[in-house]
Amino acid sequence: MPLVRISLTTSKPESHKRKVSEAVHRALVETISIPAQDRFQVITEHSPADFIYDPEYMNIHRTNDLVIIQITLSAGRTLEVRKSLYRRIAELLNQEAGLRKEDVFINLVETAKENWSFGNGEAQYAT
Amino acid sequence: MPLVRISLTTSKPESHKRKVSEAVHRALVETISIPAQDRFQVITEHSPADFIYDPEYMNIHRTNDLVIIQITLSAGRTLEVRKSLYRRIAELLNQEAGLRKEDVFINLVETAKENWSFGNGEAQYAT
Amino acid sequence: MPLVRISLTTSKPESHKRKVSEAVHRALVETISIPAQDRFQVITEHSPADFIYDPEYMNIHRTNDLVIIQITLSAGRTLEVRKSLYRRIAELLNQEAGLRKEDVFINLVETAKENWSFGNGEAQYAT
Repeated sequence: MPLVRISLTTSKPESHKRKVSEAVHRALVETISIPAQDRFQVITEHSPADFIYDPEYMNIHRTNDLVIIQITLSAGRTLEVRKSLYRRIAELLNQEAGLRKEDVFINLVETAKENWSFGNGEAQYAT
Repeated sequence: MPLVRISLTTSKPESHKRKVSEAVHRALVETISIPAQDRFQVITEHSPADFIYDPEYMNIHRTNDLVIIQITLSAGRTLEVRKSLYRRIAELLNQEAGLRKEDVFINLVETAKENWSFGNGEAQYAT
Repeated sequence: MPLVRISLTTSKPESHKRKVSEAVHRALVETISIPAQDRFQVITEHSPADFIYDPEYMNIHRTNDLVIIQITLSAGRTLEVRKSLYRRIAELLNQEAGLRKEDVFINLVETAKENWSFGNGEAQYAT
C-alpha cells in the first residue's frame, strides 16, 4: 500500500539507489507493520538545477546527497508510529546507504484505505 | 481536476502511452462524471531499477508492463463510485492498451475542491 | 514544509526553470507565511507526449508553456489564504518568468503537520 516516491539528484550509482529503496522499505515493514511484499516505489533522479532544497532550514545541514521521500499511505497510524517511521528510515539510510541523517527528508500523505487498487480493478482494502 | 500521474517502465512506444492516457481519462469521465475536457496528466518513465514493485503481493501477478496510476482528485466520491473507477480503468487498459488487469495499480489522493486553480490564479471550484 | 512538484514540458532553458522555482517559492513565503528557508522543490520535464493537458478547459487557453504545480503542505490555511496563494503564484510567474497566467495550473495536497521530517529522523512540526 504505501506508494513511495523517492527523489534524488543524478549521478548516484544504481547500487546506492537499491540500498535507499531497501532501507526505506525495511523501515516501513518494521514500524508501520506492512507485509514485506507490499512494496511499490518509484525513484526519480533530478539534475541539480531541478532538485531544490534549502541547505540550512531548521539548522539541519543538507548536502547534494539529500533524499526526498514522499510516502502515500492509508491514514490511521498514531503519531508515535509515524515518529518511529521517520527515525527508522533515517537510521537505516545511514547504516545501509551511508547517508547522513540530515540528508533525509520525509513527507507522508495519508489517504483512505479504500483508495487503493493493487490490480484487477478491485479495491482490495475496502471492507 | 483530477491530476493524474502515470508511472511506467521505459521502452514503451509512444502509441502505448497514448492509449494508457486515453483509457485512464475515459474511465474517469465515465465513472466520476468529470467533463471530457478536464484532462491533466503527466507520464513518467522509469528505468527498471527505478520502478520497484512486488510481483506477487496479494497474489496478483505483476510484470514489467505494470502501470502505477496516482490520481489526485476532489474528495466526495462514494465508495461505489471509486470502485467503479478502479474497475473501469482496468477494463479499458485491458481493452484499449492490451494490459493485463493485474498490471494496473491505482491510488487516489483526495483534496478539498478549493485546492485547485486551473489558470489565471483563480480557485475555479471554490464557491 | 511545502514540498513543491513542478512539471513542465522539455526544452526550457535552465534560467526559465530557476525563475519559475523562485516565483513559486516567493509566492508561498508572501502568502502562506512560511520561512524563506523552507524551500523544497523538485522539477520534472516531460516530453510533449508525456505532458497532457486540455488547451481549453474552463475556457482558459493553455499552451505548451503550461506549468503544473502540485504543492503538498500542512492543512489549515483558510480559503482566503489559499486564494491569495493562487493569485500570487500566477502574478509572479507572469512578472518574473514571462508566463501567461492561463498557463499556471496549481493543486494543493494538505497533510497533517506531524507528517513531515526535515532531517535527522525527527518530526520537527509535531508538538
